[in-house]
Amino acid sequence: MKSLDSTVKSIGSVDRTIEPQIVAHLNDLTKPPGSLGRLEEIALQYCLVTGTAKPRMGKKRICCFAGDHGVADEGVSAYPKAVTPQMVMNMLAGGAAINVLSRHAGADLVVVDMGVDDPLEHAKGLCRRKVRRGTDNFTRGPAMSVKETEQAIAAGIELAMDARKDGVTLIGTGDMGIANTTPATALFAAYLGCPVESITGRGTGIDDTCLQHKVEVIKKALDVNRERLATPLGTLAAVGGLEIAGICGLVLGAAASRMPVVVDGFIASSAALAACRICPAVKDYLFFSHLSQEQGHKVVLKEMDARPILSLDMRLGEGTGGALAMLVIEGALKVYNEMATFSSAGVSEKQP
Amino acid sequence: MKSLDSTVKSIGSVDRTIEPQIVAHLNDLTKPPGSLGRLEEIALQYCLVTGTAKPRMGKKRICCFAGDHGVADEGVSAYPKAVTPQMVMNMLAGGAAINVLSRHAGADLVVVDMGVDDPLEHAKGLCRRKVRRGTDNFTRGPAMSVKETEQAIAAGIELAMDARKDGVTLIGTGDMGIANTTPATALFAAYLGCPVESITGRGTGIDDTCLQHKVEVIKKALDVNRERLATPLGTLAAVGGLEIAGICGLVLGAAASRMPVVVDGFIASSAALAACRICPAVKDYLFFSHLSQEQGHKVVLKEMDARPILSLDMRLGEGTGGALAMLVIEGALKVYNEMATFSSAGVSEKQP
Repeated sequence: MKSLDSTVKSIGSVDRTIEPQIVAHLNDLTKPPGSLGRLEEIALQYCLVTGTAKPRMGKKRICCFAGDHGVADEGVSAYPKAVTPQMVMNMLAGGAAINVLSRHAGADLVVVDMGVDDPLEHAKGLCRRKVRRGTDNFTRGPAMSVKETEQAIAAGIELAMDARKDGVTLIGTGDMGIANTTPATALFAAYLGCPVESITGRGTGIDDTCLQHKVEVIKKALDVNRERLATPLGTLAAVGGLEIAGICGLVLGAAASRMPVVVDGFIASSAALAACRICPAVKDYLFFSHLSQEQGHKVVLKEMDARPILSLDMRLGEGTGGALAMLVIEGALKVYNEMATFSSAGVSEKQP
Repeated sequence: MKSLDSTVKSIGSVDRTIEPQIVAHLNDLTKPPGSLGRLEEIALQYCLVTGTAKPRMGKKRICCFAGDHGVADEGVSAYPKAVTPQMVMNMLAGGAAINVLSRHAGADLVVVDMGVDDPLEHAKGLCRRKVRRGTDNFTRGPAMSVKETEQAIAAGIELAMDARKDGVTLIGTGDMGIANTTPATALFAAYLGCPVESITGRGTGIDDTCLQHKVEVIKKALDVNRERLATPLGTLAAVGGLEIAGICGLVLGAAASRMPVVVDGFIASSAALAACRICPAVKDYLFFSHLSQEQGHKVVLKEMDARPILSLDMRLGEGTGGALAMLVIEGALKVYNEMATFSSAGVSEKQP
């Protein structure tokens, strides 16, 4: 298994020397320069990430990481913890939103158990990478150890490497874990220094009282774990989660493989942020798929200087926003590869 | 050919008595209620338009209407008028952005000559509905007669009816016509009363001087045609365009056939607005696909109380934004039709 250190060492910034060549091609397509807006930016980024002015779209894959959270015991979610394994089973049976939308996007779906608090013995088709059965309640100490975090990251890295070997050229992240907006918010607060109140939201649908309680829980977690927040990895271990660490690994492994990554919503953004703190060059490889309706996502994306592709008031996670964004990214790439040029089509260019 | 009057008479508001049944199904799907945001709204609207809680997605089609504009002689575009027929030929050869994106969306593409100022004699595969070779310069009088406008609308209605017969269940609008942001802007100003300056933009990419000139041209057109702006149809004839009237007809014909319509960008929105002024019930049938980068689109969509699905800084027209939005709409419908329900999947519901 490839270690975190060696993976990080192999990630460099993208090579921008091919940028003029890519832009020249975009401007030669039969449309006013820039008139396809973000599709042109997306095509450019895809080319830069893959390091070629002649990109191709291979397979697409979404890895949905599942894990449970000790902090769920604090009553920060509208749903019982049992829903995590139930939804894993639902995904394996093909009935969840991510099944429908990954199929729609032409992406295969890998459901990964990083740390569900259930043995999931009879779960057929599950990718088993369980580090432990759920994290500890991080209002009383760290969610997990640094070693466990590294193990979860390594699993994500390996899944990215496997995808690359399987011919995947665009990979998406997904998450499933009751209560996981709580660790995600704690991570944003710790990494970005945002006031907890400004970024804490209603997750799957908690009421005002529960929202206030959630803010207090996150503040307490940051306070209890204060000393552990000195490093990116220590922070992820202290107030993160197993599925978040898995996504962080997937992002790192994808960047190391020069494979563009589609970051889903609020949870995935916190994992992508952890990856960027561990290795800043990772940023170049990320497509932020959508602006979640989860209060706080707008704030943190702005802080991260990230522009989401879609804004559809979604707040489900699972990779659902990423699946839809994949269709936009693929469209952008097809435009780049399949449109006629001014000279080939005999179309007049802009008047001087 | 179905007349405008009889078509308008056959358009009613959607039947909202089935709404509770549709919402109940959406809430029974294995996700927190409302967590798929606009996808749920889109699925609901699609059901209401088609008048069933058990909708199906049949074929998709985009009709791209082309026409020339006499006002192009005033120098309001960055491109020469010859580009309209050149781009029609490019579309018929498969090289334009709309070819790529309609293929990507799984939609077939119909390229309609409503009024290109070129015989297009050798254009194979062209849908020939030419009313005349371009409109008149509307700074000197009406762009076209009311009778010509009705003829263009009737052609659009017929294309919608044909689509329905062919098994199309989702239809998109596209436009091609050098200088056509000028009539579109004039229509918005006339119908909505917006100040011309606030909604006039750079189209395919004009400079500051040309932009100021374009504002003056539009003001002059509105002034010269003042008396003709008393009725929705008179307005469309006076300061509209042939492709815009064609799109207006497509929208009316789709609504009459209970077929949801995907409105592309700035030009298509002006045609949709004309259709709504001719028959207000049409509004229920429209999906506004994207917020164009054309300055003014945001203003007019707000005035029209229309929320675009995408916002990708596109400003090409042709139906390109509509093609991408079709993929979101189809995704929403698949979610509605294919996801498991709480009871069937054995997933616990929200805690009381």
